[in-house]
Amino acid sequence: MKLKEPKTVLRVSSFIINMSGTAGQVIRCKAAVAWEAGKPLVIEEVEVAPPQKNEVRLKILFTSLCHTDVYFWEAKGQTPLFPRIFGHEAGGIVESVGEGVTDLQPGDHVLPVFTGECKECPHCHSEESNMCDLLRINTDRGVMINDGQSRFSIKGKPIYHFVGTSTFSEYTVTHVGCVAKINPAAPLDKVCVLSCGISTGFGATVNVAKPKKGQSVAIFGLGAVGLAAAEGARVSGASRIIGVDLNPSRFNEAKKFGVTEFVNPKDYDKPVQQVIADMTNGGVDRSVECTGSVQAMISAFECVHDGWGVAVLVGVPNKDDAFKTHPMNLLNERTLKGTFFGNYKPRSDLPSVVEKYMNKELEVEKFITHTVPFSEINKAFDLMLAGESIRCIIRMDG
Amino acid sequence: MKLKEPKTVLRVSSFIINMSGTAGQVIRCKAAVAWEAGKPLVIEEVEVAPPQKNEVRLKILFTSLCHTDVYFWEAKGQTPLFPRIFGHEAGGIVESVGEGVTDLQPGDHVLPVFTGECKECPHCHSEESNMCDLLRINTDRGVMINDGQSRFSIKGKPIYHFVGTSTFSEYTVTHVGCVAKINPAAPLDKVCVLSCGISTGFGATVNVAKPKKGQSVAIFGLGAVGLAAAEGARVSGASRIIGVDLNPSRFNEAKKFGVTEFVNPKDYDKPVQQVIADMTNGGVDRSVECTGSVQAMISAFECVHDGWGVAVLVGVPNKDDAFKTHPMNLLNERTLKGTFFGNYKPRSDLPSVVEKYMNKELEVEKFITHTVPFSEINKAFDLMLAGESIRCIIRMDG
Repeated sequence: MKLKEPKTVLRVSSFIINMSGTAGQVIRCKAAVAWEAGKPLVIEEVEVAPPQKNEVRLKILFTSLCHTDVYFWEAKGQTPLFPRIFGHEAGGIVESVGEGVTDLQPGDHVLPVFTGECKECPHCHSEESNMCDLLRINTDRGVMINDGQSRFSIKGKPIYHFVGTSTFSEYTVTHVGCVAKINPAAPLDKVCVLSCGISTGFGATVNVAKPKKGQSVAIFGLGAVGLAAAEGARVSGASRIIGVDLNPSRFNEAKKFGVTEFVNPKDYDKPVQQVIADMTNGGVDRSVECTGSVQAMISAFECVHDGWGVAVLVGVPNKDDAFKTHPMNLLNERTLKGTFFGNYKPRSDLPSVVEKYMNKELEVEKFITHTVPFSEINKAFDLMLAGESIRCIIRMDG
Repeated sequence: MKLKEPKTVLRVSSFIINMSGTAGQVIRCKAAVAWEAGKPLVIEEVEVAPPQKNEVRLKILFTSLCHTDVYFWEAKGQTPLFPRIFGHEAGGIVESVGEGVTDLQPGDHVLPVFTGECKECPHCHSEESNMCDLLRINTDRGVMINDGQSRFSIKGKPIYHFVGTSTFSEYTVTHVGCVAKINPAAPLDKVCVLSCGISTGFGATVNVAKPKKGQSVAIFGLGAVGLAAAEGARVSGASRIIGVDLNPSRFNEAKKFGVTEFVNPKDYDKPVQQVIADMTNGGVDRSVECTGSVQAMISAFECVHDGWGVAVLVGVPNKDDAFKTHPMNLLNERTLKGTFFGNYKPRSDLPSVVEKYMNKELEVEKFITHTVPFSEINKAFDLMLAGESIRCIIRMDG
């Protein structure tokens, strides 16, 4: 289905600036709708209502697929909420803003984020937290906070939002607190991947584990988040980056991200924490757990050196899991921390991550293994399910 | 039994300086010997051999009793090692030094410490650790590292050392790495308590939990270590200090240490972590666990606020305990850390703790509830076992 673009959108260079014509109007555009759990998305014509108070409407230019989209699309572990528009890693441009929005304006280049920053709650006031009380990720909610309604509909029937972003749509509406304004010179087809997984892993290392130059770091799980954690270790000047994964095919790819050694727990008849301790004269200086397996969490904690080791948990566990260790492992001066979105505050901190890419400190291109046009979005799902992609960019103009 | 002091000891003002006569000689002096587990100590005349390579011999002027002495004297939980001279919180003066000792000399005022700092191992080189590879606490060893022999004997029969200090003796021999040289103006009858429990609790708060001014802190266990942790919170400017103890009589004493509120878990039919979360709008900013009960450790962790809460474990657990929590408690950006001796490096850092007392920042007097002469050392045990003392100073000249 080929739809006309809103009439008043002008193309200026490679940017699209809405001059005002669509502001306040319903926009009809293409979106990839998930009608049922696990069934291919269907490109539909949807109606996108104007942004309400404290909301913005974005034109999405590039989006990418993250495991979290797939997890909720499969809906094996939670109450299904369909029909829904998934998507939360993306880059776009502000089309219009709702009442009360003062720090964004049409034309701004932005990354929508699955979690927000209201700038008013105790978490936003704390220097140490990014878990905003108002806008913290909520995977169960399919509507806007403002009025409990969806901004998407097809012939009057509402289509649910996903984590406040729903970027598998040419236009979407988000809360202003879930949008990071970035350097307009940054290529959105690259930096779009910084709005979730890459920043999560990179931040876990540079903001939370904080390895010092020359220290050793173990990374559990070499998917996109783990590879981004390895990238954080590389950027921090780690001397050894030990990748741990059950899939030996991951190692070759991981080398590009600075991983120097590879441990497959299946290759040993002793616990992987012992293998790592033996390799490193008592333990690594830092570890980052990116699988969500509780056994990997325990190993990641117990493989750090006593006296100064820091283990950081990133992967999300199952709801019945128990983390269990002997308290002496803690008393011997190890630190165990969890992190969410790499401890980045979405609005305050994400622009600086984009700058790290612009300064060639953080390498983003190597995460992008595939690109598909929007019309072939289901291919991105196939690639991820087959374990073939790290990140697949979906071009919304295709 | 009244023994003569070594002839060449001169009294100068309140200090005692050995002018050289006893150096290299065996010193005969009084020591309180534990002949059997749980039996009263007996003041005996012992022979103290001269210090060997990297050792120093100290004249102990004041010592105090710590739970750890009582625990190993009772010997209920470990292999008994008797006869033994207990004692590890003390203040004294260097009598003589062995070969290779360059940074201490006779007359120096010192605190012997149950754990050491060799200044050469990876832990000593790390800014983050105080768990020296060579001199880390070893409660099983009853001899000197240098030659595997004891420096104490009675009629040729060796008496075992305890944690390298054995301060229940007028003279003792320690490794130079287990001795902190302090300001000679500091009153040893006060600062002697800084060589173990008080620094452990105080350091757990100021070095590890690091509450910011105005934050809330929960302290689990209001014994000497817990009260010192509370003192650390007070000095840090905490706005609320919540004391948790099963014994309600502790609260009155605790008020002197800045504790503002008291929670007795027995008074509630919900977990104490929930009680504290309800009192503090979601959790305290910091907690410090000083009991060693694994259930208290779990509560201390789970009562800190998500996003920024830090829980610090100090109390030593039983060997079969398991620390268990849902990993989401970590993922929600809580931090769990253990500490040993308040993260102080004995030689490098303890002098600065003494200075905090000298500057009237850290109040030491309120920890000292009793004083007994050396001849009545068993009274100190009785007071501690009855829960009546925080710290009982034992005057070696009495």
